[in-house]
Amino acid sequence: MTDTMLAPGATIGILGGGQLGRMLAMAAARLGLRAHVFEPDPQAPAAALCARHVCAPYSDADALRDFAQGVDVLTYEFENIPTDALDLLESLRPIRPNRRALATSQDRVIEKSFLNEIGLDTAPWAPVATADDLAAAIDRIGTPAILKTTRLGYDGKGQARLNTPEDAAAALAAMGGQDAVLEGFVPFTREISVIAARGLDGSVAAFDPGENVHRDGILHTTRVPAAIPGTLASDAVLIAARILNALDYVGVMGVELFVTPGGLIVNEIAPRVHNSGHWTQQGCAVDQFEQHIRAVAGWPLGDGARHADVEMTNLIGADVERVPELARAAKTAIHLYGKAEARAGRKMGHVNRIL
Amino acid sequence: MTDTMLAPGATIGILGGGQLGRMLAMAAARLGLRAHVFEPDPQAPAAALCARHVCAPYSDADALRDFAQGVDVLTYEFENIPTDALDLLESLRPIRPNRRALATSQDRVIEKSFLNEIGLDTAPWAPVATADDLAAAIDRIGTPAILKTTRLGYDGKGQARLNTPEDAAAALAAMGGQDAVLEGFVPFTREISVIAARGLDGSVAAFDPGENVHRDGILHTTRVPAAIPGTLASDAVLIAARILNALDYVGVMGVELFVTPGGLIVNEIAPRVHNSGHWTQQGCAVDQFEQHIRAVAGWPLGDGARHADVEMTNLIGADVERVPELARAAKTAIHLYGKAEARAGRKMGHVNRIL
Repeated sequence: MTDTMLAPGATIGILGGGQLGRMLAMAAARLGLRAHVFEPDPQAPAAALCARHVCAPYSDADALRDFAQGVDVLTYEFENIPTDALDLLESLRPIRPNRRALATSQDRVIEKSFLNEIGLDTAPWAPVATADDLAAAIDRIGTPAILKTTRLGYDGKGQARLNTPEDAAAALAAMGGQDAVLEGFVPFTREISVIAARGLDGSVAAFDPGENVHRDGILHTTRVPAAIPGTLASDAVLIAARILNALDYVGVMGVELFVTPGGLIVNEIAPRVHNSGHWTQQGCAVDQFEQHIRAVAGWPLGDGARHADVEMTNLIGADVERVPELARAAKTAIHLYGKAEARAGRKMGHVNRIL
Repeated sequence: MTDTMLAPGATIGILGGGQLGRMLAMAAARLGLRAHVFEPDPQAPAAALCARHVCAPYSDADALRDFAQGVDVLTYEFENIPTDALDLLESLRPIRPNRRALATSQDRVIEKSFLNEIGLDTAPWAPVATADDLAAAIDRIGTPAILKTTRLGYDGKGQARLNTPEDAAAALAAMGGQDAVLEGFVPFTREISVIAARGLDGSVAAFDPGENVHRDGILHTTRVPAAIPGTLASDAVLIAARILNALDYVGVMGVELFVTPGGLIVNEIAPRVHNSGHWTQQGCAVDQFEQHIRAVAGWPLGDGARHADVEMTNLIGADVERVPELARAAKTAIHLYGKAEARAGRKMGHVNRIL
C-alpha cells in the first residue's frame, strides 16, 4: 500500500443505509474493505450488505461515538446529516468529502453563492424569507420561477412553481415557514450531469457527461453519451473540476448542469454518488461507487473511461412490476434495492441497458 | 413475477461462504434477493455481505435445519458438501443445481463415466484402488500420466504426476489410501472453459469460451475471446449444453475443455460458478454470479453476450501486494475477497482488465 491507501481489511463508515449506501458497501467489498453503516431504519437497503449496521438515530451520541471508533474513515450517502452529529463524528475520524462540501450543498444560498464566487453561472436567484423578499425577488427575476426551501429539498420536494406573480402567496405558504430561494427559469435545451471524483492526492477524474430526463421532478433516465458537442462535454468536466478543487474535495460529486443557448449553467451539486451516475456500473471498469470508495480510502482514482454506451432508467414505485419483463430484455442489467414496499415515488431500483 | 420467479425479498441459501459465495450474495442483492450463508468459518469472505451467516459445521443438524427453514431455495459454492447434510437439507428445500449434478462432479469416476456415456470425449482414464490396478492402468494408458484422488481434489491438490512407470509407488502413496483415477496426458494446445447456465424452464445460455493458463496447478489467467476458430467455440458451447441437459441442471456450470488436434476433450466439470468465469463481471451485462442466482431463483436467464474483451488474472498469495500498482492501471477492475492472511496458494482476489 502507499502512504495514504487504507489496506484491505480496513473499514469505511457510511452514514446512511439507503440504496446509495448499499451500493457503496458492495463497492468497498470489491476492494477488500469492510463497510459499517449508520442508519436509523432497521430495514434499510444497506443493512444486509455491510459488516456492521449501527441502527440508531443521529441524536444518539453514544451510538455515533461507538460507530466512529469502529471505522477508519467516514463518508455519507446523503447531505442532510445533522450538524451536531457531524461535529461529534469529525472529532473522532476524518469525514470525506469534507465539512465545507457538506455545508455548501446543504444550503442553496451558500451553494449558489459559492458557485457564483468561483465564476460559474447559475440561474438567477434570490434568498427569500418573507413575502416582501419574495415580491422583490419576483420583480427582479420574473416568472415563471420556482421557490425552493434552502435546505432539505430533494426529488422535487420542498418546491413550488410560480407561473405568475399571483402564485407568490401559495408558494410561500408551501415553504412552511422555512427559508427559501427563488430561482428563475432558464431556457435550457438539455440537462446533463457530470459525475466527477477527486482523490486525496488532488487528482481529478470525471465520467463522461450523461443526459438526464426527469418525470414528476424525479430522475427518470440518464443516457450516455449526452447528445452534446465535445467542446460542451469538456466544458462540463472543467466546471466540475473547478468545483472539486475549490472545495478541496475528496470523493465523488454529482454536478447537474443545464445546457442553454448561452452555455452551461450549474443547477445543483450533490457531495456524494448520484443517481445520474448509476450507468457507470455497466459502462466503466470502475463505477462511481468504487471511485468514491477509492477516493475516501486514499486509493488512486480508478479508470472511469466509458467502454459502452448506456441508458439508465429508474424503477420508481410500481415500475418494479416491470421486472419480469426487464429480466428477459437484451443487454440489460437490473439493480434492485431490496425495499419491501413499492410506494409511489419511491426509488425501488434501476436498470442499465447497454446501447 | 412469473410462476417460477422468486420475488424480490425472497431468500437464497448459499452453502459455503468463500469468495464465490460472497460474489453470489452480492449478485442476489442486485436482484433484490436476500442471501443467507451457511459456513463454518466465522471470518469467511461472504460473512459480511449476507443478511444472515449461520456459522456451524456441516455435522450440526439443528443448524442445517434452521438454515434451510429460513430460505426459499438452496444453492452452493463448492461441490464437496457432506452427503448427510445434503440429505437433510434436500428434505426441507429445493437444492439447485440438483443432487445428481453434485454426485457426478464429486467423484471423478462417476463424472468421466457420465461424460463418456453421453458421447463426450475425455482423456483416457482408469479407476485405481490398488497397486495392481495402477500397474494395469499404466499398461493401458502409458506415461506420462496423472493420478488423482476420485474425490475432494481441486487446485492441483490430491494429484501426483507419473513421468515413467517407476513413479507408480510414490504416486499411489501420495493418494493416502484414497480411491484414485489414472488419467492419460492428452496433447492439448489450449485449455478453454465454457461457463454455461440452464434455467428452471430448461433454457440454456453460455458465455463465450475463455482461454485458461494455469501456474503451479492453479488458474492464473482467463482471456476472452479464446484464440480458437468459431466452429470450435460453437462445439464447446454445444458440449456444455449437452451436459446441462443430460443432468436436468439448474444453475451455472463451469466446463473445462482441452483443445486437441482431434477435437475437444472434456477435462472437468464444476457444478457452480467458476474461477474461469470471473471475467464476465466486466465483459457482460449479466455476469456468471447473477446468471446462477437467476437460474436458482427461477428467473429467466439474463443476457450474457460479451460486450468487451477481457483478461482475468488471479491474485494468489503475495500477488495481493501488487494491488497499489494495479489500482493505477488503465481499464482494470480489482476484486478482492476480504481475506486477512495472504498465504501461499490462497486466492486473495482477481483483476479484470478490459482489452
